[in-house]
Amino acid sequence: MWNDNQLLELLNIHHPIIQAGMAGGVTTPALVAAVSNAGGLGTLGAGYMKPETMKESIQGIKDLTKSPFGVNVFVPENPYATEKEIGEANRLLEPFRNELGIKEETKPQVDECLFENQINILIEERVPVCSFTFGIPPKGIIQDLKNEGIVLIGTATTVEEAILNEQYGMDTVVAQGSEAGGHRGTFSNSYNQSMIGTMSLVPQVADQLNIPLIAAGGIMDGRGVRASIVLGADGAQLGTAFVTCKESGAKPQHKEAILHTKETEAVITRSFSGKPARGITNTFVKEMEGHERKLLDYPLQNSLTKGIRKEAAKQNRPEFMSLWSGQSPRLSRSVSAAEIVQSIVAQTKRIKS
Amino acid sequence: MWNDNQLLELLNIHHPIIQAGMAGGVTTPALVAAVSNAGGLGTLGAGYMKPETMKESIQGIKDLTKSPFGVNVFVPENPYATEKEIGEANRLLEPFRNELGIKEETKPQVDECLFENQINILIEERVPVCSFTFGIPPKGIIQDLKNEGIVLIGTATTVEEAILNEQYGMDTVVAQGSEAGGHRGTFSNSYNQSMIGTMSLVPQVADQLNIPLIAAGGIMDGRGVRASIVLGADGAQLGTAFVTCKESGAKPQHKEAILHTKETEAVITRSFSGKPARGITNTFVKEMEGHERKLLDYPLQNSLTKGIRKEAAKQNRPEFMSLWSGQSPRLSRSVSAAEIVQSIVAQTKRIKS
Repeated sequence: MWNDNQLLELLNIHHPIIQAGMAGGVTTPALVAAVSNAGGLGTLGAGYMKPETMKESIQGIKDLTKSPFGVNVFVPENPYATEKEIGEANRLLEPFRNELGIKEETKPQVDECLFENQINILIEERVPVCSFTFGIPPKGIIQDLKNEGIVLIGTATTVEEAILNEQYGMDTVVAQGSEAGGHRGTFSNSYNQSMIGTMSLVPQVADQLNIPLIAAGGIMDGRGVRASIVLGADGAQLGTAFVTCKESGAKPQHKEAILHTKETEAVITRSFSGKPARGITNTFVKEMEGHERKLLDYPLQNSLTKGIRKEAAKQNRPEFMSLWSGQSPRLSRSVSAAEIVQSIVAQTKRIKS
Repeated sequence: MWNDNQLLELLNIHHPIIQAGMAGGVTTPALVAAVSNAGGLGTLGAGYMKPETMKESIQGIKDLTKSPFGVNVFVPENPYATEKEIGEANRLLEPFRNELGIKEETKPQVDECLFENQINILIEERVPVCSFTFGIPPKGIIQDLKNEGIVLIGTATTVEEAILNEQYGMDTVVAQGSEAGGHRGTFSNSYNQSMIGTMSLVPQVADQLNIPLIAAGGIMDGRGVRASIVLGADGAQLGTAFVTCKESGAKPQHKEAILHTKETEAVITRSFSGKPARGITNTFVKEMEGHERKLLDYPLQNSLTKGIRKEAAKQNRPEFMSLWSGQSPRLSRSVSAAEIVQSIVAQTKRIKS
């Protein structure tokens, strides 16, 4: 069914189904390995991971699968905030900290060497595939990874960003439509003007690229995967579909929220991290609306809200958690990762078109 | 290729390709008839049309085709604005009127009997198909049209709106994804939370409906039409693809703008009509940004900006015109309507998936 598919050859996988490298503990080694063992590409979401944790996770994955897998990392940014701006952003968060009984105000903490240290681990561990979000890494790093035979996946939210990814040497690129859950990968165009729906983004990107293309955004089942290929992609990346699966490390409240929500509830918010991301609206998102200007830039805001998100999960208060979800939550299911992959493959074969 | 397609049977057409009933003079009788003669469903965009103009256009279409065609009308709203609000909205428009040499301030003019009079014409002329935007008409009107054997198409931007359309007796419904050009058809959910991408909207609606489903939003070619069907729709509605075609009555500046723009330039604005609509950003859209609260509700704002839009077209000033476009302008072509339909049919046959 996937004849002449360059992506399968490039990634050395059986089915053009990629599990997105979601950060925040969703992508357990068990999840990543289950997807890879089922013939797709599992991906460790290492965006915020400390190098030592990342190393452990990679070794955990290797213990569970002999198939290729990927690791996703975030291309870093180094924003600046004045003491006054930090104070204002903290004051906005005060009511939530009080509600949860969190005492201290937080100074944003950013490890400026994180990315380089992560890259070193990827090379040491010779991971098969590395994907990037929030930009394209420096040419030196691209070359180092390529020299090790690591396949590189870029992320684009516009045609221009996709072309840049190809020009800089990415082996394949994910075109992330506006339906996608979690963070927007936008790095070149303005956020507002980069909310391109998957139906529009994929064929327009496909017309411009020479490297294989992976569609993302709103894809949850065989219909979405096959539609992606019809639109000109070589495969599809699914995030939300795997958040609710058995092996996912997502908080139970997060899984439940996705399984019981509607497409209209998955909104874009900058309130958790400073970068636009799609998640299920709740008290935190609503209360922060209208205060956009006082939020710190990513990743400073992310650092400020970390304690709130963690404590909210502990106290079972989903109204203060980041509940990332794409726009197709009605298609979510609580099954094993292997079953998701298998049912997609079976469904794509059945579809009449 | 379109075996067992209920939509083809319902509309009595050969190909599941519907030309959207765009208002503002785009849908000339020549365009509507060309699409219907090619085996799709042409649609007259009669949203703002006076009954007598509408009647003439319908008769013009009948002279050019024996095949079924549709007429699109807007379900009316009756908003109110105080003198003060009208004054403020007019002051916002002053710089544009000055620039174009338009003298008088405008009182918003709304014909409250327009919709009923339009319905009467549809019945008199026994049009084959009628489609609605901005809501569901009263039950009495639905019954009157059905009694005449007129097939009814509703518009939905969320799953909930699609279900309402079925419950109220529509024969089929267009699921309008966020990629779509022109006005959002939203009538039940909030505008912000109804920007659901086509890739997400179509399968989630398909799972809930018993009537045939038409996908819309970002669809421009055979890839989009076939992807729509893979996602669970029975056909696709295309707007922007037909704006640039030879028979379209769109202003030359509008056609040129679509043919030469990028997906990132097609933004949502309320500035022209009071309702959110997607068009190519220009001076007017940018200058009106940040003044959202001072805009009148639809259709009052539409009435206020009419003179500006008209005069701008006359003076060849596209920077003040409404340049409606979906998010796939890179796929637009300047060919005949028949060629668009034929190339879609040919392409859907060629696609490997």
